Amino acid sequence: MKFEIIARDGQTVARAGRFHTAHGTVETPIFIPVGSIGTVKTLSPKDLHENKVQIILGNTYHLYLKPGVKILFKAGGLHRFINWSKPILTDSGGFQVYSLMDLRKVTDEGVRFKSHWDGSEHFFTPEKVVDIQRRIGSDIIMVLDYCIANPSKKKETKEAAQLTLGWAERSREHFLKTNNLYGYSQFQFGIVQGGVYPDLRKENINALMDLNFDGYAIGGLAVGESGQIKNEITEISTHILPEEKVRYLMGVGTPIDIIDAIERGVDMFDCVIPTRNARNGTVFSRFGKVVIRNAQYKADFKPIDEACKCYTCRNFSRAYLRHLFNVNEVLGLRLATLHNIHFYLKLVRNARAAIIKDNFIKWKSQFLDLYNSDDKL
Amino acid sequence: MKFEIIARDGQTVARAGRFHTAHGTVETPIFIPVGSIGTVKTLSPKDLHENKVQIILGNTYHLYLKPGVKILFKAGGLHRFINWSKPILTDSGGFQVYSLMDLRKVTDEGVRFKSHWDGSEHFFTPEKVVDIQRRIGSDIIMVLDYCIANPSKKKETKEAAQLTLGWAERSREHFLKTNNLYGYSQFQFGIVQGGVYPDLRKENINALMDLNFDGYAIGGLAVGESGQIKNEITEISTHILPEEKVRYLMGVGTPIDIIDAIERGVDMFDCVIPTRNARNGTVFSRFGKVVIRNAQYKADFKPIDEACKCYTCRNFSRAYLRHLFNVNEVLGLRLATLHNIHFYLKLVRNARAAIIKDNFIKWKSQFLDLYNSDDKL
Repeated sequence: MKFEIIARDGQTVARAGRFHTAHGTVETPIFIPVGSIGTVKTLSPKDLHENKVQIILGNTYHLYLKPGVKILFKAGGLHRFINWSKPILTDSGGFQVYSLMDLRKVTDEGVRFKSHWDGSEHFFTPEKVVDIQRRIGSDIIMVLDYCIANPSKKKETKEAAQLTLGWAERSREHFLKTNNLYGYSQFQFGIVQGGVYPDLRKENINALMDLNFDGYAIGGLAVGESGQIKNEITEISTHILPEEKVRYLMGVGTPIDIIDAIERGVDMFDCVIPTRNARNGTVFSRFGKVVIRNAQYKADFKPIDEACKCYTCRNFSRAYLRHLFNVNEVLGLRLATLHNIHFYLKLVRNARAAIIKDNFIKWKSQFLDLYNSDDKL
Repeated sequence: MKFEIIARDGQTVARAGRFHTAHGTVETPIFIPVGSIGTVKTLSPKDLHENKVQIILGNTYHLYLKPGVKILFKAGGLHRFINWSKPILTDSGGFQVYSLMDLRKVTDEGVRFKSHWDGSEHFFTPEKVVDIQRRIGSDIIMVLDYCIANPSKKKETKEAAQLTLGWAERSREHFLKTNNLYGYSQFQFGIVQGGVYPDLRKENINALMDLNFDGYAIGGLAVGESGQIKNEITEISTHILPEEKVRYLMGVGTPIDIIDAIERGVDMFDCVIPTRNARNGTVFSRFGKVVIRNAQYKADFKPIDEACKCYTCRNFSRAYLRHLFNVNEVLGLRLATLHNIHFYLKLVRNARAAIIKDNFIKWKSQFLDLYNSDDKL
């Protein structure tokens, strides 16, 4: 995968770049909205395009269960099935299987789990997960990993990281000996594990780099550790990950988490926060979060954020959004989601522009001053 | 209200026209999507514009309870609150109160009812309902009526019709002595009652006409009677209603009901069928209804209707829609609603074009041949 770094910040290791896929170019740093099961919840492809979304994420676990790879293959892949023409990254199912907890059993061979839909039993191996993603046709496919909660004991963490590494080798081998199914190239990313232990992370990364993946994800964060530890582990990881490959911090995070990680040299993020928070009635503004469900907004006829140019802010008041949530109208979910996705994409575009202008730290400080201030519009 | 009839069908009493409001012109026959409580469920104003919606309906009962007239007044009326720039018609709350059944008590003075939200008690009089709609700022306001189920005994039906007539007199008087609140004219429609009894309908209409409303609605249909009786009562009503006033058949109906009533000289319709059916996974096509939830569509990659130009049909397959319903994604509700609204608006546009071309009966017969055929795309 061709990844070009076009600018580096002078004071930090933040970088701005772009990478190329068969479905178009992605400008980094980038945020990837989560489209678990064939849609970024509540949004159409047109909504995504209008909010400058460049790449979306699909969940292998969910898509494998419904509609299933047979339907996706008949449709000519996920892009065609959901009518999304830009890049798609699919996770490996590792995280969903991790969160199923009592419904799964991990062995060297792979992971046995039960469907959350109907309790039916399934078995994922590293090879099978590659095959599934070949059929999904995602531009970037992730290896099967074994994610454990933070903090876990060092012994367990080491075992999980070693298991993940063994799976990564099998995944890479299987990927290299199989072909794409729809006439365009797919790329494969490895996933770093090692919990909160710097030495395990380093060991894991060094071994992963030998496999020469197209990009590297930092996994096993945002699963219980503090923000400080998240930052430390991110920093340790980006310090030794290859400069010329894309770095992806999985499942992160809040606007502040994302800025912190960009500063530490991360290029890509996905997280359910903007979409899930929106559906719970929490929206983002320059001045921090706004719980739009609250009664205080019932006669507030300003938009969520007067400086925001999204469809929601250009057309609707807080009072109207509050009303929609108050009467359980699904339009509210969509308008809030549109806004939050716009906010996140704007955030990474602004970060990118700041890196290019070589004033990332100044931009960050201005953003945080407002975002953490007590002033609320 | 200025209503122009621009064409009449030669073989039927169908007519094509247009009427003018402060928020724009409406071309008749027209279908009015139901936007009960400040949104046509799942759709944004932009979605409505793109599907050529000309006028929407708001429910006085719902809007009075939430967000309440105080908020709507502060917002500068419903148009501004929901950011809908085209005409709005509000019903009187009579039908919602009718459907509350055990939660209401009707007297000569008005109707006492309990909120379905919290059980709180409220009292609607004909005058109060005018005042509420003044504050809502709808372009067309409906009088409070007393709707009863079909069939009801003649004595009860007569009493209900007389009560409605008395309320209509008070409504008209109150309307004429009050002013609009937002600087644009509002118009008031009367509602014909009289159940399934032709003589009661005629009596009711003649008395209502003396009040010189801006338009006339036929109420008390689509509440239990057969299609044949619905057609008979419609025909009797339009026969004596004034030619130069808009005629509105409330709560009707299926595509066939609408065509039947256009043939009988009706100009306006509202109904929850396209929106509610959509949310249940039933969509309309030239070839009749399609229950898109059904497993038979799981690998059907055609659009709902290949001839349809709506966003949904231009972009998505039956298989994808079926998947969205199957995994409970709200995007499915919106895509199905978009399609059904497009279908209904196209239906009335086509009916209008046929009237203008003086070939309504031929058009109707061609539509029904396909619609009732066993061919399914």
